[in-house]
Amino acid sequence: MDKKRPLILVTNDDGVEAKGFNSLIEMVRPFGSIYAVAPFYVHSGKSHSITVEVPIRYRKLRESGNVQVYGCSGTPVDSVKLAFGEILPRDPDLVVSGINHGSNASVSVMYSGTMGAVIEACLNEIPSIGFSLLDFDPDADFTGTVDCGRKIVQHTLEKGLPKGTCLNVNVPSISAEEIKGIKICRQAKGVWREEFEKRLDPRAGEYFWLTGYFENHENGAADTDEWALANGYISVVPIKVDLTDYEAMKRLKDIGYD
Amino acid sequence: MDKKRPLILVTNDDGVEAKGFNSLIEMVRPFGSIYAVAPFYVHSGKSHSITVEVPIRYRKLRESGNVQVYGCSGTPVDSVKLAFGEILPRDPDLVVSGINHGSNASVSVMYSGTMGAVIEACLNEIPSIGFSLLDFDPDADFTGTVDCGRKIVQHTLEKGLPKGTCLNVNVPSISAEEIKGIKICRQAKGVWREEFEKRLDPRAGEYFWLTGYFENHENGAADTDEWALANGYISVVPIKVDLTDYEAMKRLKDIGYD
Repeated sequence: MDKKRPLILVTNDDGVEAKGFNSLIEMVRPFGSIYAVAPFYVHSGKSHSITVEVPIRYRKLRESGNVQVYGCSGTPVDSVKLAFGEILPRDPDLVVSGINHGSNASVSVMYSGTMGAVIEACLNEIPSIGFSLLDFDPDADFTGTVDCGRKIVQHTLEKGLPKGTCLNVNVPSISAEEIKGIKICRQAKGVWREEFEKRLDPRAGEYFWLTGYFENHENGAADTDEWALANGYISVVPIKVDLTDYEAMKRLKDIGYD
Repeated sequence: MDKKRPLILVTNDDGVEAKGFNSLIEMVRPFGSIYAVAPFYVHSGKSHSITVEVPIRYRKLRESGNVQVYGCSGTPVDSVKLAFGEILPRDPDLVVSGINHGSNASVSVMYSGTMGAVIEACLNEIPSIGFSLLDFDPDADFTGTVDCGRKIVQHTLEKGLPKGTCLNVNVPSISAEEIKGIKICRQAKGVWREEFEKRLDPRAGEYFWLTGYFENHENGAADTDEWALANGYISVVPIKVDLTDYEAMKRLKDIGYD
């Protein structure tokens, strides 16, 4: 292997057959040696979960030019761990995840398997980027995302990322001509309001499908990802993996928690 | 139901039969009406994952005095969502999760189903606390954790928590007499270094067990949770659910990402 060419790991949470996964491989194919390691099947909403109660397996599925594709029986984070520990010949120069079919903006970053994989790479101090297109269609058109994403990937390979920072990139579902540009944003505050759809199985047992809608608590805040996406921008949120609420540390001491 | 008595939701990721779950119910039983809703079986490492590909079910398992216990077929976060949407008569005054068998300090907060449930409650602006004991033994002694935890619960019911903040409480596995007190901390920086144990199944197929060890990147930093726990303190880390790296926002603009 050419040591000077970047080694890039591609993963996702929609599985190795997803259109967005193959579009992401095409996005990064020009830049180096590509290892694509992702779950065999769809793992939406798997967040940062790991598989500990059962063992996991992986298998090489195909190889074409500078691209090798592996399937993993575990979660997106398992896929990254397996790639780092067992599959890759060395630490990669970049990890990319996606292209997710649907938004991972605002608090969706917490539920996202796409971003779980990105954050796992970030914990290991590897530059990493998650890409999501705001279109759930399995046959969504990823052309515009591939073009814009290629610039972000090139930029990251050249300039790097601040240590301990990864990127959450979301792309609005509009034509390339309508996209106004890239906007560095913060994660909007909001919540998924749950509604459960109750059904009866053939034996009259109740079961529930999780549904719901996103409630944006910061409508109109122009520095948020939700605003950027609603106004025709690609949102780029730098993410760090420290959940500490530093302001609250002081307040908790004031009200006598310790 | 007495409207003046607090309504408390108890959940966990080790399942409804775990000793730590029943110890947590005992911890909060004196404070109000208790609804305990948790996965039927162990869901370690499930982070903030939700179940979207299959429907979920729940079932009332037992009732005793002011405590009702329900099992859920989904993850810890599913359990919280189901409780909020289908089971509880109103929004709870407090959500507690655990007592986890094992540490959720430092970056383990990212993988933890116990803390996933806490963060889900926090997103819904309900005060919430996760409790973990640094002892993986299924028969661990939770007596000390119950005693200390009760003070934290009482404090929270009386004083509340800053809006959008939840607590990650970890308890060292030492006797109550040896515990030096409670310390408000930040999350230590560190990483789980993965090692996979490769085995062969009876048909000579390879499979892998995820193992590994925690590497603390901040040994000696006395304001971190890892230091507090190693030095005989209960660590309390206030957690918020904004992953934005605000410092990096400026730096990314400087290096021309937008």
